[in-house]
Amino acid sequence: MNILFIMYDQLRFDYLSCAGHPFLHTPNFDRVAANGVRFTNAYVQSPICGASRMSFYTGRYVSSHGAQWNGFPLRVGEVTLGDHLREHGMDCWLLGKTHMKADAKGMARLGLSADSTIGARQSDCGFDAWARDDGLWGQGPDGLYDSKRSPYNEYLKSKGYDGENPWADYANAGISDDQIASGWMFRNADKPANIREEDSETPWLTSEAIRFIDETKGPWCAHVSFIKPHWPYIVPSPYHDMYGHNQIQQPRRHASELDKPHPVLAAYQDTRVATAFQQDDVREKVIPAYMGLIKQCDDQLGRLLDHLEASGQMKDTMIVLTSDHGDYLGDHWLGEKDFFHEAAVKIPLIIFDPRAGADSTRGTTCDALVESIDLAATFVEAAGGEVPDHIIEGKSLMPWLRGETIDGWREYVISEYDYSVTPRCKALGVSPRDARMFMVFDGRWKLIHFEGGFRPMLFDLETDPDEFTDLGADPAFQDQIDRLYGYLGAWGRRMSQRVTVSDTDIQNMRGASLRRGIMPFLVDGSEVPAELTQKYHGPVRQTFVPMTQSEEENHGN
Amino acid sequence: MNILFIMYDQLRFDYLSCAGHPFLHTPNFDRVAANGVRFTNAYVQSPICGASRMSFYTGRYVSSHGAQWNGFPLRVGEVTLGDHLREHGMDCWLLGKTHMKADAKGMARLGLSADSTIGARQSDCGFDAWARDDGLWGQGPDGLYDSKRSPYNEYLKSKGYDGENPWADYANAGISDDQIASGWMFRNADKPANIREEDSETPWLTSEAIRFIDETKGPWCAHVSFIKPHWPYIVPSPYHDMYGHNQIQQPRRHASELDKPHPVLAAYQDTRVATAFQQDDVREKVIPAYMGLIKQCDDQLGRLLDHLEASGQMKDTMIVLTSDHGDYLGDHWLGEKDFFHEAAVKIPLIIFDPRAGADSTRGTTCDALVESIDLAATFVEAAGGEVPDHIIEGKSLMPWLRGETIDGWREYVISEYDYSVTPRCKALGVSPRDARMFMVFDGRWKLIHFEGGFRPMLFDLETDPDEFTDLGADPAFQDQIDRLYGYLGAWGRRMSQRVTVSDTDIQNMRGASLRRGIMPFLVDGSEVPAELTQKYHGPVRQTFVPMTQSEEENHGN
Repeated sequence: MNILFIMYDQLRFDYLSCAGHPFLHTPNFDRVAANGVRFTNAYVQSPICGASRMSFYTGRYVSSHGAQWNGFPLRVGEVTLGDHLREHGMDCWLLGKTHMKADAKGMARLGLSADSTIGARQSDCGFDAWARDDGLWGQGPDGLYDSKRSPYNEYLKSKGYDGENPWADYANAGISDDQIASGWMFRNADKPANIREEDSETPWLTSEAIRFIDETKGPWCAHVSFIKPHWPYIVPSPYHDMYGHNQIQQPRRHASELDKPHPVLAAYQDTRVATAFQQDDVREKVIPAYMGLIKQCDDQLGRLLDHLEASGQMKDTMIVLTSDHGDYLGDHWLGEKDFFHEAAVKIPLIIFDPRAGADSTRGTTCDALVESIDLAATFVEAAGGEVPDHIIEGKSLMPWLRGETIDGWREYVISEYDYSVTPRCKALGVSPRDARMFMVFDGRWKLIHFEGGFRPMLFDLETDPDEFTDLGADPAFQDQIDRLYGYLGAWGRRMSQRVTVSDTDIQNMRGASLRRGIMPFLVDGSEVPAELTQKYHGPVRQTFVPMTQSEEENHGN
Repeated sequence: MNILFIMYDQLRFDYLSCAGHPFLHTPNFDRVAANGVRFTNAYVQSPICGASRMSFYTGRYVSSHGAQWNGFPLRVGEVTLGDHLREHGMDCWLLGKTHMKADAKGMARLGLSADSTIGARQSDCGFDAWARDDGLWGQGPDGLYDSKRSPYNEYLKSKGYDGENPWADYANAGISDDQIASGWMFRNADKPANIREEDSETPWLTSEAIRFIDETKGPWCAHVSFIKPHWPYIVPSPYHDMYGHNQIQQPRRHASELDKPHPVLAAYQDTRVATAFQQDDVREKVIPAYMGLIKQCDDQLGRLLDHLEASGQMKDTMIVLTSDHGDYLGDHWLGEKDFFHEAAVKIPLIIFDPRAGADSTRGTTCDALVESIDLAATFVEAAGGEVPDHIIEGKSLMPWLRGETIDGWREYVISEYDYSVTPRCKALGVSPRDARMFMVFDGRWKLIHFEGGFRPMLFDLETDPDEFTDLGADPAFQDQIDRLYGYLGAWGRRMSQRVTVSDTDIQNMRGASLRRGIMPFLVDGSEVPAELTQKYHGPVRQTFVPMTQSEEENHGN
């Protein structure tokens, strides 16, 4: 069996028709959900691209792998999904975005060249790269944002788009009165991108995925990782005006959220992107583009699924559809992700397992508390391996797919965020180390703990599903706060770094040294079998006379 | 300046005359203390050789590096003291024991050969090995305990000691009626070791250290790491009978400790070594041997110090004397280490800094709460570097050596213990993951937290300096327990894995992407300087007509 691990960037959990969106019709996502399981309580380990993805690709919490924000290299030697799968004979390929930054310093310290297979895998987060493209080809006075080659730009050039960076001039630009209307500006979000629809990013990567499926011998896990619907919010015709005012959801926000907000939340409400999304005319332009991008993703998913069906591979392919985090789109007076309301931290997760064992759950939803790191565990099990739980911190979702009753599933999910690189850190007057936040969510109560001396925030999603009312300063809820801090404390004591020794290794180590001549704590040797001490009996072979006084005086001179 | 980082194994903090031992006279330890600072509240990160040393050698807590017990490999790529010092032009050498187990699997995954300099350093915990010898050359039915070469055994052979493993037959054996009296058995502890005193382990390693000092160009940090006074408790004449019944300290134990003890402590009280040390006749034999081993260590330290003086190098050599953990010797009805009473978890720590900046503190003691991981930080600073506090979790002790007033020193120390490999794990019915304990000590109150659902233990060292009275079940002390759990919670949230990015890196990253063309969140571009958006203005170079309906229908086919 192969695994098609498809990720969209910044796709909200509720912007699919199977998730209930009243206007955005996503028949192909729905098709997979109708044949698989849709997980309705799936959360990322950090609501930001880089850190979230590093967790997906290692199966470890952000505080465990340490690559806790965009551009923070994943340290050399960290064991990845690719390492685990290759141990079980499954290759692990990348098409698209990982946001991985190589630990160049660590690789140099270990003498690893980026040219070697090993070095390349270290640089690409454990994947073998079919086509690596992180999607944002910005260029400014200080140079290029991403210095790697761009297969997408090369594709555009091969199609006749001129210039050094056709992404900037075509894919990321609309047209307004014969002037470039850059996709970076929200005011241009309603314009059609200046590119043939089939040449835009999502179709391009889908074509690569189809070619991959045709050409690659399995078993494989392919991470097909789309940049959309992440900004820039611009999409080619006909998607740019497929949705309009009447299809835009009202923002989930309340005046009370602006009234004496928690200081960290207040700093978020002041950001450029929040301010933009607080403007209804920005939402009016951006959200239809966002929806159009998702609709294009759905159409392209249809191409991919049709190809799997037509080539007879659907029956041998596990399909996973997910996202690395959400998008506020003006909910809670915010934009982007980077914080812990459901709109940002919850993700869509749909899994189709073609095997008979999963027949009983087809078309169902599962509301178990799921963490993104569960996918790494699930894939290892799907590849026929036992989950190395001294390394992978997630839990396999296979029991849920098989419809089994499960004891001892998790009681809470954890997500983290490091805002030290952002302007919020200075604005709030905290040190980089203290610019960290932790979410603890048990399915109803959501605690947000802030390092740096701030009080926590607390939401009760049963009485306040909109997360409008922060109970964190209310003494009436101290019991809930304490209970969730108890979870956070337990999680803080978790065993996360004993990565070189499994529980099986430990069992094998017990008592081993005794049979290799390490025999302390014996009074006279009778405490252990004679076999172990027999080397230590018998006549003395040589005798040394203790040194005389004068020998002692001269000792060492 | 060079750094002589001398470690003894299993040396109790109170078995030195400068620390107050009434009978064991250690003039050479005292000599260093008289010229330096003796730290009276120094604690190890785990009271067991392997885990403690991995923390010394990385400057990181056990839960941060994960090599949490003996024989657990330190994962490939973990940054070590040697890596840090070499960055500042100081070499880092090993003479003696590290207890490091190479991460062979990780090294293979990264293609590192143990033969290369890089691979050898990975295998030897970041050190360049002048002479690596972990000191226990046991041999049993299943073979050798340690498969590495033993420079010490090779030395013995060169001196005419016959056999394949002269350590076992000579260094670790006494004589009783012409029979080998193995050093493994406590009943033989009072016999002289069957070896010339000058050929025993401590003098041998000291000679190597002297040779190293003569032959090696600095600047260097040399970790001279003695196996003694760690068991086997056997020492050559004249040390074997230098001390007797009248010099043996009364055990620090009380009947109340055996009355309804905490279940984990009870399991410890039942172990073979505890049972042995509960017998006064075992103490009567072992403790004089232990004292004799320390006396020999002190005499040999004298050789080393004399050599430094005579060769004019004392003025350029920082000297550190310490231990990797203690030894119960029957205190608390226990033997060995492995738990958290002062006898096991507290260590001697004496630092001599020859530079003028340390003149004001010569001959003083310092009672600041010190963790063993502070040494790595101290050495980096001594080598002229800035402590990389995103990797090293300890704090430099230089301010204390310079007699400075310090704000914001730590309020508590942490130590950990993983007993999963020991028989206690099965005896207590816990999983390997739950066989873990944490000590939190604030200088007065000592909390011991146990995973696996046990209640905590609590000691008040002000009213109960002997640690006889466990207050962990007493509701009157819940406030103290809660307070210390607060410290443990804060420590559990510490940032320990962001090892690829320093605070300086973070400052340099702020705002950087904006000047590289990543410009999200703009409504119309006027929010940023014109220079940043100028690439995104101007006439359109090519225009693509949106696809016709039939083109759409044929798209992708």
